[in-house]
Amino acid sequence: MTASAALLNASANASTTHDDRLRASTDRSGYVPSTLPDGVIYAETADDVVNTMKLASAHQVPVVPRGAGTGLAAGAAAKAGEVVLDMSRMTRILHLDPVEQIAVVEPGVLNAAVNAAAAAHGLFYAPDPASTAICSIGGNIATNAGGMLCAKYGVTRESVLALRVVLPDGRMLRTGRETIKGVTGYDLNALMIGSEGTLGVVVEATLRLRPRPIQTATVAVYFPDVAAAARAASAIIAARVQPSVLELMDGPTLEAVDAAQGTNHRARGGAFLLAQTDGYGAALEQDVLIEAIQPFASSYEKAADTEHADALVATRREAIPALERMGRVSICDIGVPRNRLADVFAGLEDICRHTGVRIFNVAHAADGNLHPMIVVDPDESITEGPAKAALAEMFYLAKRLGGTLTGEHGVGLLKRDWLQDELGDISLELQRSIRNVFDPLGILNPGKAI
Amino acid sequence: MTASAALLNASANASTTHDDRLRASTDRSGYVPSTLPDGVIYAETADDVVNTMKLASAHQVPVVPRGAGTGLAAGAAAKAGEVVLDMSRMTRILHLDPVEQIAVVEPGVLNAAVNAAAAAHGLFYAPDPASTAICSIGGNIATNAGGMLCAKYGVTRESVLALRVVLPDGRMLRTGRETIKGVTGYDLNALMIGSEGTLGVVVEATLRLRPRPIQTATVAVYFPDVAAAARAASAIIAARVQPSVLELMDGPTLEAVDAAQGTNHRARGGAFLLAQTDGYGAALEQDVLIEAIQPFASSYEKAADTEHADALVATRREAIPALERMGRVSICDIGVPRNRLADVFAGLEDICRHTGVRIFNVAHAADGNLHPMIVVDPDESITEGPAKAALAEMFYLAKRLGGTLTGEHGVGLLKRDWLQDELGDISLELQRSIRNVFDPLGILNPGKAI
Repeated sequence: MTASAALLNASANASTTHDDRLRASTDRSGYVPSTLPDGVIYAETADDVVNTMKLASAHQVPVVPRGAGTGLAAGAAAKAGEVVLDMSRMTRILHLDPVEQIAVVEPGVLNAAVNAAAAAHGLFYAPDPASTAICSIGGNIATNAGGMLCAKYGVTRESVLALRVVLPDGRMLRTGRETIKGVTGYDLNALMIGSEGTLGVVVEATLRLRPRPIQTATVAVYFPDVAAAARAASAIIAARVQPSVLELMDGPTLEAVDAAQGTNHRARGGAFLLAQTDGYGAALEQDVLIEAIQPFASSYEKAADTEHADALVATRREAIPALERMGRVSICDIGVPRNRLADVFAGLEDICRHTGVRIFNVAHAADGNLHPMIVVDPDESITEGPAKAALAEMFYLAKRLGGTLTGEHGVGLLKRDWLQDELGDISLELQRSIRNVFDPLGILNPGKAI
Repeated sequence: MTASAALLNASANASTTHDDRLRASTDRSGYVPSTLPDGVIYAETADDVVNTMKLASAHQVPVVPRGAGTGLAAGAAAKAGEVVLDMSRMTRILHLDPVEQIAVVEPGVLNAAVNAAAAAHGLFYAPDPASTAICSIGGNIATNAGGMLCAKYGVTRESVLALRVVLPDGRMLRTGRETIKGVTGYDLNALMIGSEGTLGVVVEATLRLRPRPIQTATVAVYFPDVAAAARAASAIIAARVQPSVLELMDGPTLEAVDAAQGTNHRARGGAFLLAQTDGYGAALEQDVLIEAIQPFASSYEKAADTEHADALVATRREAIPALERMGRVSICDIGVPRNRLADVFAGLEDICRHTGVRIFNVAHAADGNLHPMIVVDPDESITEGPAKAALAEMFYLAKRLGGTLTGEHGVGLLKRDWLQDELGDISLELQRSIRNVFDPLGILNPGKAI
């Protein structure tokens, strides 16, 4: 019996069907694995995770933790010889304290489900990846996920107070604390967040909720081209306005949305900014924002009411589904300093031209975090040929501008080639030693992240 | 020649005078060392730090990094056999980009100096410890310092984008990045922040600046007693208002301020809350805040203008100097969940009663972070006898309420006894292994923090 068979045989909720192994072999990155994992264990309790990791350690079986499978860097991809530990059945909200404004949840709960529970108390959970309806909190923690609202409210790291984590050897670690502040010991909580399932398996998270803004003001602005929109985004930051949302879309993406939705955004401009301000002064702050973008804009449309605002936000939310109708989509994730947005769009146009790939751009403009989307034919690979060449060029473009390989999606399998170039030898060596502290046998999500 | 003499002899800016060694032997915690360090090296450049750590490694000399010496946990205390690496001469602001809203600084620059430079561009640096005028950015990073404004803007970790750090063996590490977001590799930047000089010596920091609020609304509220003030603070959070400042002071502290300043706060109430809201909706948000506290308050006073607001803020800022006139002050730093404030004050009164120590309370109420201040006679110790007993009881009180030993001051030397109780064996073992990855010889700030 192989080591993985021993682990799977000893587990209550294990499957070795082809369908389950196929489903657990990749995520939404477009990565196509060449083999399938040996089986899938569905955890239902923290004890299941403890038992799985103890057995996996004893048999030295590589384990790939998996949330909802919505990752965009193949961080949860699994291959022959590996067993997937699927956390998607652990979906309970264990405790929600509306006075203290925290929620204690299991990792498989969906981001949107936490928000629905919080909304009943006038609260919200700030990190809001585009995949909010289908992504899990555990996966959000694994990648330190962001979203539209992190312009104002920070990323996952700023909204996770504490974790319970099963270590690779099955021991239970608590990180962080129930209080807002605390500096006892090193920040293992932040170390765990964004570690892509390589240091431990999160079985419980204490999330910080925030009061829903009393008012939100929404405006959609059209520009002649993406360069003008990028300059307007920089002007908003320079005007010392703090938008809660500042999303940019380029002309090709608007065309794709129009084709999918029957809208006419592209006719109104070659680029689009969706801007929200919120809080007690939302309308006043919106006035300052609009003044700042006027020199660059063709026209703008203020939301008259909530339905109107929702429709404008939907324009941005529909971008990825619209592109997915056109082919296989690889959603990239570079970041640059906020005042280099115009430069990075110019560079991306160059990359389109000389690699011949189609790139569609949306960006969290207030953070300088871009999602250039490469669309290839459904039977083409995103990990080889022109798509890979374009990905490499994007990274070097971001690096030249003082930026980063990945703003919020993680490294996974797909971006390891450029890791050393960004981090340098000394950092990478330290990180590998830290990984070894947590996982001396190297059984947790091997080959990913670092 | 001893190892430390070899290091000191080889260093350009070294001192072994009694005065310098005495000054470098402790901080503002009230801790009195029984021996003095062997000498002090004053770093003037990053290269000085590199050379010092290379030599210290070669000779295996323990090195204690020191900022401005304003720490409150004896984290920079140094003893015989150790050499202090004083960073207070590295005070340059290397670069300030008002458009990107970042400042690149050396670690010895004072917190207030960064803020002065930022203010010239309509920006500010959010972390604002009470010691802002005399504390250094390097020390702020070492303790993950907070302050009054972190109620809204987060602690040091949320305002430091990147670091350059000299490792114990003299190698240079870069952590973080110039962009707002980024998830390449583990979060070594957060690991370094709050590590109390045990993992490396920060020689450069990239700080995030923020737009100065367009408007700030200030109100001082008086209550019959501290229990009413604590309930009011919880009511503010529950009303889903986000104060930028929410500072609580108890009756004894008001008396001390009155005695020092000639004011009459104590006559107006047995406890005091200073509340600020800021931004475009500051006044509206203040109205909601005042409505929330009305059921608990005796009276309130809205600031009519900036001078008036400054005077109200000064009431809080004068608390520590006022107490320092009364004796030796030990400023404690426990944290509790925000809705346990009333419970923790009741518990602190019990501790006063049965240990016989005098405790004066100020608190960052919006974070649940309290600073109970133990005042003893100038010739009494804060690390032995009743003061130590009270400190221990405070920790167990915080722990019973789901809280923490230290919200923002760090563990240093003074709080190591309770570290294991809060973190547990597994966490502490992992943290010590991580320390060993960075500092296998154990030469950097030994015996501190973890």
